[in-house]
Amino acid sequence: MPPAAAAEPTHPAADRIELAAVLAALGHPARLEIVRRLAAGEESCCGDVVPDLPRSSVTHHIRTLRESGVILQHPRGRKHLLALRRTDLDARFPGLLDVVLRAG
Amino acid sequence: MPPAAAAEPTHPAADRIELAAVLAALGHPARLEIVRRLAAGEESCCGDVVPDLPRSSVTHHIRTLRESGVILQHPRGRKHLLALRRTDLDARFPGLLDVVLRAG
Repeated sequence: MPPAAAAEPTHPAADRIELAAVLAALGHPARLEIVRRLAAGEESCCGDVVPDLPRSSVTHHIRTLRESGVILQHPRGRKHLLALRRTDLDARFPGLLDVVLRAG
Repeated sequence: MPPAAAAEPTHPAADRIELAAVLAALGHPARLEIVRRLAAGEESCCGDVVPDLPRSSVTHHIRTLRESGVILQHPRGRKHLLALRRTDLDARFPGLLDVVLRAG
């Protein structure tokens, strides 16, 4: 029997992304760092984006970012790939991501 | 003996305002509403900005906004006046407040 693939995580639809939830998700230094790293590259594998934090913290921060609509989390075998929802965020809150990334 | 004046609340210096703390402070519907009301007017008296919440919640939200550097809280007798730190925020995180207020 092959190893079980990771479950497909749920994401809010683009038009259900809430401003307060996005701001709260961005409002933590580790999550800001994850978002900056994803903005700089294309996609990243879960553990790679914030290598200097314990695995459980990374998992929590990734979930917060995903559930608020800031990132997508795609299963890839037994791992997950992460990607910033730049198009969705830019459409819903024009300029927000740019301002936050510039403010670093 | 006259009634005691409210204690002077502490505020972060403009150059110590942190992006993550500001985003976290803005990341709540009630606090976003307070910020929008302050942005629309000049100054407001504490209880007036979010009249539909219990006093203890308002106090908590006001403190979160003040301690992150989003608002100023001035004692005025036994009450407090509130004001958005628009100049400080615009200088430190250009465009952030405008984007958030527009995104409402």
